[in-house]
Amino acid sequence: MEHKDYKCYLIDLDGTIYRGSDTIESGVRFIHRLQEKNIPHLFLTNNSTRTPQMVVDKLRGHGVNTDIYHIYTPVLATESFLLAQNPDAAKIPVYIIGQIGLVQGLLKNERFYYDDRNPKYVIVGMDTDLTYHKIRVATRSIRGGATFIGTNADKNLPSGDELLPGNGALCTMIEVATGVKPTYIGKPSSIIVSSALKMLNAQSQDAILVGDNYDTDIMAGINCGIDSLLTMTGVTTKEQLDGKDKQPTYVVENLDEWEL
Amino acid sequence: MEHKDYKCYLIDLDGTIYRGSDTIESGVRFIHRLQEKNIPHLFLTNNSTRTPQMVVDKLRGHGVNTDIYHIYTPVLATESFLLAQNPDAAKIPVYIIGQIGLVQGLLKNERFYYDDRNPKYVIVGMDTDLTYHKIRVATRSIRGGATFIGTNADKNLPSGDELLPGNGALCTMIEVATGVKPTYIGKPSSIIVSSALKMLNAQSQDAILVGDNYDTDIMAGINCGIDSLLTMTGVTTKEQLDGKDKQPTYVVENLDEWEL
Repeated sequence: MEHKDYKCYLIDLDGTIYRGSDTIESGVRFIHRLQEKNIPHLFLTNNSTRTPQMVVDKLRGHGVNTDIYHIYTPVLATESFLLAQNPDAAKIPVYIIGQIGLVQGLLKNERFYYDDRNPKYVIVGMDTDLTYHKIRVATRSIRGGATFIGTNADKNLPSGDELLPGNGALCTMIEVATGVKPTYIGKPSSIIVSSALKMLNAQSQDAILVGDNYDTDIMAGINCGIDSLLTMTGVTTKEQLDGKDKQPTYVVENLDEWEL
Repeated sequence: MEHKDYKCYLIDLDGTIYRGSDTIESGVRFIHRLQEKNIPHLFLTNNSTRTPQMVVDKLRGHGVNTDIYHIYTPVLATESFLLAQNPDAAKIPVYIIGQIGLVQGLLKNERFYYDDRNPKYVIVGMDTDLTYHKIRVATRSIRGGATFIGTNADKNLPSGDELLPGNGALCTMIEVATGVKPTYIGKPSSIIVSSALKMLNAQSQDAILVGDNYDTDIMAGINCGIDSLLTMTGVTTKEQLDGKDKQPTYVVENLDEWEL
């Protein structure tokens, strides 16, 4: 396939490199080729539950050796977004709904502290320990003026053959109770993509976003004005793609078709 | 105020007879007058958390003596709705998210039994013990074909000076995770109103619905084609009312203005 020579790659994980616990071999071979040619890249996930080290460990199990500096999550993008919004604040009070990846990821930065009485931000990520109490505190805080941030808008999270309720569902509950829409950080928001490009010190015309999900990966590219490559190894089907007004820049059956 | 002579009354509670723990004296006097004249009536609440006896006890605390046969809740309407849909089923498997009013209210009828594996209905009411696990079971069941019922669509539940997340917020989370809209039973749905009229053995042209909330009480009247009386003692303000296309049949400052 003829294509532009991209200087750097932003690469989705689930549906692109693995599918749950299954390895997508063509995706892994693509990463090996990128690594052999020393082409700059970041793994760009919408998952806020894992720490970067947990993502590295999971990738190793699928035959990809990488390090935490190649992992970019909505947690890192949220941290960067909040710090940019508060350049002068010594301390930023936050109320967090989320799992270890989000809670530890933010609170290890000492400029953030946990506050369930009067937070400046309510940050909501996927949380399998969600309770009514947490929803209530988030609702009260946002009604009291806190800014509502959602790490990602995914309606479902695949787990085995089940589609679990995702963070988009959780955030919508709080949206209905408060009348306030969240600012979403993860794909398809341009926030995480801009932030990742900055990490790579790259211009948008030099980068391409690779993924299997039209609604998150490809739309992130479209929203951010960067080229995109859809691999048909994950959730989006040919039929779904045919119905879309805006098409990906490139489409492949799998990433073996993509030369470097 | 001139008005038609109604044979029976459907009367809202919160904002009409009491406001949280405060008594609305004009509302209580109105009930006393109804009782003195032996005019048939039902209290029509959207609250699924209390049993009818708990509602009777609460009303007694506000100076209204009544009995459980005068209380009509979304739980009773749900029971009646499900039985009408399943006239021949000996046993109906249900998965319930909700508090004592809903759980006890349904399961005391032996035709229902609790089933979190393969329910025919998922019934969702306000639940301050909500957990992610419950949302997950509901999502899995509805994706597996169970019918999704919401007792009521209220976005918030007033509590002191706080607006808690209400059952409409909770149901929307499941709606986003499943792509399935619930059938709502409570006001403004016509289901609870039709069911209450049947209980009173009344025709819609003989009845009037009294309440303080345009979006639930008045819309229930409009949706069901019965007359409505808005009392300005609760949530709906004059300004909000002015913006509405369809107006209540009557509007009063408080129920002292309404002669019987």
